[in-house]
Amino acid sequence: MDPIINAVLKPKSIAVIGASTKPEKIGYKVVENLKKSGYQGAVYPINLEADEIMGYKCYPNIKDVPYVIDAAVVTVPAKIVPKVVQEAGEKGVKGLSIITSGFSEVGDHALEDEVVRIAHEFGMRIIGPNIIGVLSNSDQMNASFANFLPLNGKAALVSQSGALLIAMDAATYTRRVGFDKMISIGNQADLEVADLIAYLNEDENTTCITLYIEGLKNGARFMEEARKCTKPIIALKAGTSAHGAAAAASHTGSLAGSAKVYEAAFEQCGVSQAQDLNDMFDTTLALSLQPMMKGDNLLIITNGGGVGVLATDAAEKYGLPLKFAPEELQAELRKHMPSFGSAKNPVDITGGAGLEGYYECIKYAYPHTWVDGMAVLYCETAVTDPQEIAEAIYNAIQESGDFSKPVTVSFVGGDRCEAAMRWLIEHDIPTYNAPDLAIKALTTLRKQEQMLQTAHNRPYKPTDVDPAKAREIIAAARAKGRDALTEVDAKNVFRAYGLPVTATELATSEEEAVRMAAELGFPVVMKIVSPDILHKSDAGAVKVNIKDEQGVRDAWKVIMENSLKYKADAEIDGIAVQEMAPWATEVIVGSVNDATFGPTLMFGLGGIFVEVMKDVTFKVAPIDIATAMDMQSEIKSAKILQGARGELPRDQKALANVLAHYSYMVYDLNDEIAESDANPVIVYEDGKGVMVVDARIILTKK
Amino acid sequence: MDPIINAVLKPKSIAVIGASTKPEKIGYKVVENLKKSGYQGAVYPINLEADEIMGYKCYPNIKDVPYVIDAAVVTVPAKIVPKVVQEAGEKGVKGLSIITSGFSEVGDHALEDEVVRIAHEFGMRIIGPNIIGVLSNSDQMNASFANFLPLNGKAALVSQSGALLIAMDAATYTRRVGFDKMISIGNQADLEVADLIAYLNEDENTTCITLYIEGLKNGARFMEEARKCTKPIIALKAGTSAHGAAAAASHTGSLAGSAKVYEAAFEQCGVSQAQDLNDMFDTTLALSLQPMMKGDNLLIITNGGGVGVLATDAAEKYGLPLKFAPEELQAELRKHMPSFGSAKNPVDITGGAGLEGYYECIKYAYPHTWVDGMAVLYCETAVTDPQEIAEAIYNAIQESGDFSKPVTVSFVGGDRCEAAMRWLIEHDIPTYNAPDLAIKALTTLRKQEQMLQTAHNRPYKPTDVDPAKAREIIAAARAKGRDALTEVDAKNVFRAYGLPVTATELATSEEEAVRMAAELGFPVVMKIVSPDILHKSDAGAVKVNIKDEQGVRDAWKVIMENSLKYKADAEIDGIAVQEMAPWATEVIVGSVNDATFGPTLMFGLGGIFVEVMKDVTFKVAPIDIATAMDMQSEIKSAKILQGARGELPRDQKALANVLAHYSYMVYDLNDEIAESDANPVIVYEDGKGVMVVDARIILTKK
Repeated sequence: MDPIINAVLKPKSIAVIGASTKPEKIGYKVVENLKKSGYQGAVYPINLEADEIMGYKCYPNIKDVPYVIDAAVVTVPAKIVPKVVQEAGEKGVKGLSIITSGFSEVGDHALEDEVVRIAHEFGMRIIGPNIIGVLSNSDQMNASFANFLPLNGKAALVSQSGALLIAMDAATYTRRVGFDKMISIGNQADLEVADLIAYLNEDENTTCITLYIEGLKNGARFMEEARKCTKPIIALKAGTSAHGAAAAASHTGSLAGSAKVYEAAFEQCGVSQAQDLNDMFDTTLALSLQPMMKGDNLLIITNGGGVGVLATDAAEKYGLPLKFAPEELQAELRKHMPSFGSAKNPVDITGGAGLEGYYECIKYAYPHTWVDGMAVLYCETAVTDPQEIAEAIYNAIQESGDFSKPVTVSFVGGDRCEAAMRWLIEHDIPTYNAPDLAIKALTTLRKQEQMLQTAHNRPYKPTDVDPAKAREIIAAARAKGRDALTEVDAKNVFRAYGLPVTATELATSEEEAVRMAAELGFPVVMKIVSPDILHKSDAGAVKVNIKDEQGVRDAWKVIMENSLKYKADAEIDGIAVQEMAPWATEVIVGSVNDATFGPTLMFGLGGIFVEVMKDVTFKVAPIDIATAMDMQSEIKSAKILQGARGELPRDQKALANVLAHYSYMVYDLNDEIAESDANPVIVYEDGKGVMVVDARIILTKK
Repeated sequence: MDPIINAVLKPKSIAVIGASTKPEKIGYKVVENLKKSGYQGAVYPINLEADEIMGYKCYPNIKDVPYVIDAAVVTVPAKIVPKVVQEAGEKGVKGLSIITSGFSEVGDHALEDEVVRIAHEFGMRIIGPNIIGVLSNSDQMNASFANFLPLNGKAALVSQSGALLIAMDAATYTRRVGFDKMISIGNQADLEVADLIAYLNEDENTTCITLYIEGLKNGARFMEEARKCTKPIIALKAGTSAHGAAAAASHTGSLAGSAKVYEAAFEQCGVSQAQDLNDMFDTTLALSLQPMMKGDNLLIITNGGGVGVLATDAAEKYGLPLKFAPEELQAELRKHMPSFGSAKNPVDITGGAGLEGYYECIKYAYPHTWVDGMAVLYCETAVTDPQEIAEAIYNAIQESGDFSKPVTVSFVGGDRCEAAMRWLIEHDIPTYNAPDLAIKALTTLRKQEQMLQTAHNRPYKPTDVDPAKAREIIAAARAKGRDALTEVDAKNVFRAYGLPVTATELATSEEEAVRMAAELGFPVVMKIVSPDILHKSDAGAVKVNIKDEQGVRDAWKVIMENSLKYKADAEIDGIAVQEMAPWATEVIVGSVNDATFGPTLMFGLGGIFVEVMKDVTFKVAPIDIATAMDMQSEIKSAKILQGARGELPRDQKALANVLAHYSYMVYDLNDEIAESDANPVIVYEDGKGVMVVDARIILTKK
């Protein structure tokens, strides 16, 4: 655990720089909140004139405080912040929460950079600027200007929006979702989301990390820390729409990566993505209170057919379809329900079921080896008491002695249900007001388990690569002033990273082309090689299936003519003569550099699948072989690779190898390659490999 | 308005048959609830022994009551129900609510049928059996065994699940969604959902109809009444998953149509489908309190960037992406916010905004001609009072004098927000605890407007059809004991319904085939014609592109040989000789008879699109031309028909004509055709028409 970050988040003593005697000022509010929250550490208000605030002795300057200070909360106007940070550094303060706004979020990057520079000179770390502050129940510390600590619980919220944090703080009480900590991170000038994940992973009071993200500073670091984190992380990413991303960017000053890339990155590093604000609260409740779900067997116990059916629909919708319980389990359950009940799954103990029905069924079913997770549903009736049912549920689970699997509850009803639900949540059982929410929570606990199993995989680093060779080719192209590689160069870069490309020679004369074609063996393909003609087919500068010498000569003339017609002053390296790969299933592999996450890999089937159906999938590079296999099953047209319509399966292993190598190439050369694609890549029958037929690399601007 | 149904739902006098003096009995509960709810009509408990119950004079038999009785609520045991229904009929009761269970839901269809038969003899109608009862705020009538009337409001709930109705009744208070009526319809032995829709459409106290459906008795009637209904309808359909449908069926005894067909049917008749229980409540709130949204311009006013971004994301997700407000509107709004606010859309009046900011912006923006609908978002802050903001929102809207467009509100915060939200809802403004919910509600109001515009279209009835001819062909096939038509017969049925099919002749000898081929003109296609060989290609019994007489002779031999190899005792009509249609874009049209909605039309592109991508769309037949055009844009591969990858657009009008005629055919012949397809149908360039190449019809079992 980083001791400096610990000093900011769990300080033994706090100076409030800019503490005020005026109740309407933030500098007053912070001191008042520290007092009200029962903070046990020392508080030193720094104020030029006052003697004391809220009973705490004031000092005119932080350097006048005769004691050791862990953290300073800064509330002075932006232009004075560098000065007070300097003084805090000289005083030996370990870390800072800078509440003050007026930095990069309004365009003043220079001021923000200066503050960070000064802090780092003294080894201090900063949360903020432009934040609400830090709130911690376990430290009885409200070092913020939010009015009160959140409802006590086991989750930690890290929020990029201060306004939302204040609102969520209040909302914890009405939604009954408890947090130990709420941390406003504002502009992330120094400490960023990744640092907080690393810290909270080691924090004994945190069981689940909840993030509200508008844009990350450094996607790679985020993924790295999320991968290392052994606690569940749930993230609400705002700005997933084009219009919304623009609004988010203007709001926080940070670049929002594309929604699809965020989605891929979250999945790759084991972060559950919340669909909306309520989903974030609902998922936090489950992830903070319950263990992961280790298998697919979900058992539903209900007193109402209607909610049972709705829950069953939800289980299928969220990817964990119900199975019938084993006969032995059914037989036991049938003992505790009327004859018109059902023990199959959902287990319908019927509307007349009172606490005994719930108690007996849960006590037997919950610890049963077949059951991996359980949802208990209750529909308010005219004859049963919700509180009694709640206690029966809790007691049955307690007495089962098994706490290794998750349980969620749904109560549908009125005020009495609300009270019973609150009671269950206080007893660490996530309880929701609709059956689908209880089911969705369980499926998230299942998905977390599955993601955590793969998220920790080390990034892929192949050994059969020759980066020096690739960089040499790129350097040579740059030396000629080019911003894109020719197909021949791009294929050589691909080859240096272990990708199978069609044999391709660059002919600079007709005679040379004739000789090369003969060497390669007919039929051949011929294409113009020019940095000025990237869309070679459109230019009429590609000829395929050339069968003999005369064909080569004819092609040479036509390609040269068409190329000059297309662009009279095109710089022409020559004409590529290539072996003609037999046709099979066509796929596309490509990359773009995402502003947040860096190089990302795109994969899809060629032709209409990409162009019409937009059936593609993304991953942040690099990926391993397992992820490369996943990509192939994620696309909607996956069956075509698996062997649809009576065809043999394609060589998915070889394709996975290509995807992984390709991802490593764009990751390793991310300073050089801005965008690239292998289009088409031909995938043959299982065991017969893959061939990259065309290659394109756009270089980064330098 | 049906006077009999009105007598059951708004009775001036009620007899409770089976009224009890024992508080634990339903027959007591109903009398007590009528009293407690303040029911103003006469109540006559029918009880053999008691003199009075809850102050109401008892009668031993309904026939002893010396006054006119509108409705009887029946709570006696199932086996006595026929007797009391007979007596009620003799007494002249108009309608019955039969609460008693133990009929078709436990398999006793005979008893249920008998009760309905007796009731109909006397012209009585029945709600139930197996219900909770009927609750109505506007009639101060709780004629049920649910404990209390729901929160007063403008929606009407019709629920197939009694247990869920009781729970929802209680939940109206905690969720703040008001209902005027709640009607439990149970087994729908007589009155069904469709009847209630028709009734509620004319009920002055209902603005929105909310349905909880497990299975409909008669899909066609449901669609007919929903189409006629001018009020918004929202339906939660339980049992959308395979496992869930099985659970629903066992629960209610009614057949659940497939989820996809329900979805299509709802869309076709203008019913909004709720995604889950909370969505049903949330949508009801908006639909019951606000007008439809008549255009796409959605304006968001917010005090927080974070919730603004989340709302913007939701607008795109739910199909109503934001546009920037016109400059003139922006200029006016800028007057009421600080310089770091934004007037674009979302309009961010910033966290410091108090009631004036909201009031001024709303008062100007809401009645603005550009605005079609408005969402107002508030994020609780440390310095503003939610109640003040709520009142500012309400006052600004009231004073604008414009009530023609919808407004929704979202408050994110704690207890103070909850109270303010309650106040807004009491003032008829739908208010939600998350920004996306306020946006989703508006998009539903928009979609309702769009659906209502098309849902009232009359079903399609083409005139260029010859049903008699088609039925003659089918009758002839049935006379031969066949349960499917041969391709030749099926094509003739298609032709009788105006569908363009390839010219096809049935040859019964090689010589005849040679002559027919010459008449049709080469190339031709030849296929076996046998009721025993439906998968002709698999049998090797299809030859295409036959170019000359010798080809016909060769094909004849091979097809006959292969057919007999495939099925030695196959009944063979002969070999079809067909014109060979030039190839173009391949589509599939088909039909199946849904258990609930009857004949449904399926459409998709052929080959991998159907087989691998499952890219198909369904409609309940018949459809009109406009819907047939919609089907073509609903599939994911729609662009291929519109002319993808540089190709000319396909003849979508001709295809629409085929889809509409086909749908009419399967609708008109639904007693004869169980399943059918036209596969493939070739669609040529725009203006060049469509050709059905192969045809298949499976007959209904008779």
